[in-house]
Amino acid sequence: MPNPTAAMLVIGDEILSGRTRDANMYYLAGELAKHGVDLKEVRVVSDDAAAIVTAVKALSGAYDHVFTSGGIGPTHDDITADCIAEAFGAAIDVRADARAILEEHYAKTGAELNEARLRMARIPDGAALIDNPVSRAPGFTLGNVHVMAGVPAVFQAMVETVLATLAGGKPLLSQTLRVERGEGEIAATLSALAEKFGDLSIGCYPFQVNGAFGANVVVRGTEGARVDAAITELARDLGV
Amino acid sequence: MPNPTAAMLVIGDEILSGRTRDANMYYLAGELAKHGVDLKEVRVVSDDAAAIVTAVKALSGAYDHVFTSGGIGPTHDDITADCIAEAFGAAIDVRADARAILEEHYAKTGAELNEARLRMARIPDGAALIDNPVSRAPGFTLGNVHVMAGVPAVFQAMVETVLATLAGGKPLLSQTLRVERGEGEIAATLSALAEKFGDLSIGCYPFQVNGAFGANVVVRGTEGARVDAAITELARDLGV
Repeated sequence: MPNPTAAMLVIGDEILSGRTRDANMYYLAGELAKHGVDLKEVRVVSDDAAAIVTAVKALSGAYDHVFTSGGIGPTHDDITADCIAEAFGAAIDVRADARAILEEHYAKTGAELNEARLRMARIPDGAALIDNPVSRAPGFTLGNVHVMAGVPAVFQAMVETVLATLAGGKPLLSQTLRVERGEGEIAATLSALAEKFGDLSIGCYPFQVNGAFGANVVVRGTEGARVDAAITELARDLGV
Repeated sequence: MPNPTAAMLVIGDEILSGRTRDANMYYLAGELAKHGVDLKEVRVVSDDAAAIVTAVKALSGAYDHVFTSGGIGPTHDDITADCIAEAFGAAIDVRADARAILEEHYAKTGAELNEARLRMARIPDGAALIDNPVSRAPGFTLGNVHVMAGVPAVFQAMVETVLATLAGGKPLLSQTLRVERGEGEIAATLSALAEKFGDLSIGCYPFQVNGAFGANVVVRGTEGARVDAAITELARDLGV
């Protein structure tokens, strides 16, 4: 059976404006590879309702799972929950279970559960909450869309929770061969290898160190023995 | 006149598999902000022809400019040029001007311009070459799509070349106010500010240091005096 597929939707002006370098995409990609879920596409859109709704509909229809990051806090620019509800035609309001989590949390910390913070209890009808062990305000899963916070520590904790509940496939294994020759020298060999090992993904990533060209050849697949065989054959063919 | 809009398309299994943390998106986002081009969307897709062609068509139709990164080297997984040609219905083959650049380069280095390296001279009809001062193999612009290498040093050089030829708009200016209070405490103030300064983008990015919550409030806009005014008012309202 092929692995389940996934897409990620990053919601955040801070990425598009160049203020923040993405961390969540890199983290999620690594975790999904380990869990045997094939990440096929990532989109980054701004804090704009029409853009978010369009992207959620497109990705949710095309892949088994969608993971979103960002836009579920207490401020005016946190519009993700409402956009997900709109994309699914679901009603949304402050929900009792989410409100109870926030009430307990703010009773402990002594801070006020004001109107802004109550926004974080807005959860679409039919969604299942995702626990937030870091700062309590929950994420949620609606249909095949998992809605998580943008703050990396919270995002990572939520990804862990979601993946524990998700049927994964075979983890993606990879081996790398470092070659001290330019890509152009080894391209024909790689091409023949890619043809012979059609079940594997063979990527070539050039680098330049002190004026000398080299490349990392990465062989990826879900069968360890096949990845081994391809790397062994490649090393022999290239005489490294 | 509003600033021109742009999208970025990152082509690369290495990002989706979690092997590589993106650097080009972060770089391009910062350069476009300085140049007054509004980056509205980023997509990351795998080295898959159908996925690339679909994304190019969608983005090229929706935005003024599209910048692509990756997949124009000499190896079998370098299929970007052919996909761009397909998206535009343009013919593609080894082109004399690109071939001449490679011939000159390899004559100097003493390496062979073999069949694999000749792939890098495949340029769609009607495209304008983008100079590559780092490793010579050119990128190209076809229609509103700027096709560049994935290696960060080459990507950055090509972006510089393209932006020098591109009519920009007003640079995006930003100021940040660091607030030692949780987002939920300042959300109502931010919301009122966002309403009053509808021409600005006001984002709130929470952090947690040694157990204490805080937030960076970022005000962005193209008019320096307006950004100043909003930050000044915010600091006064919050008493910081």
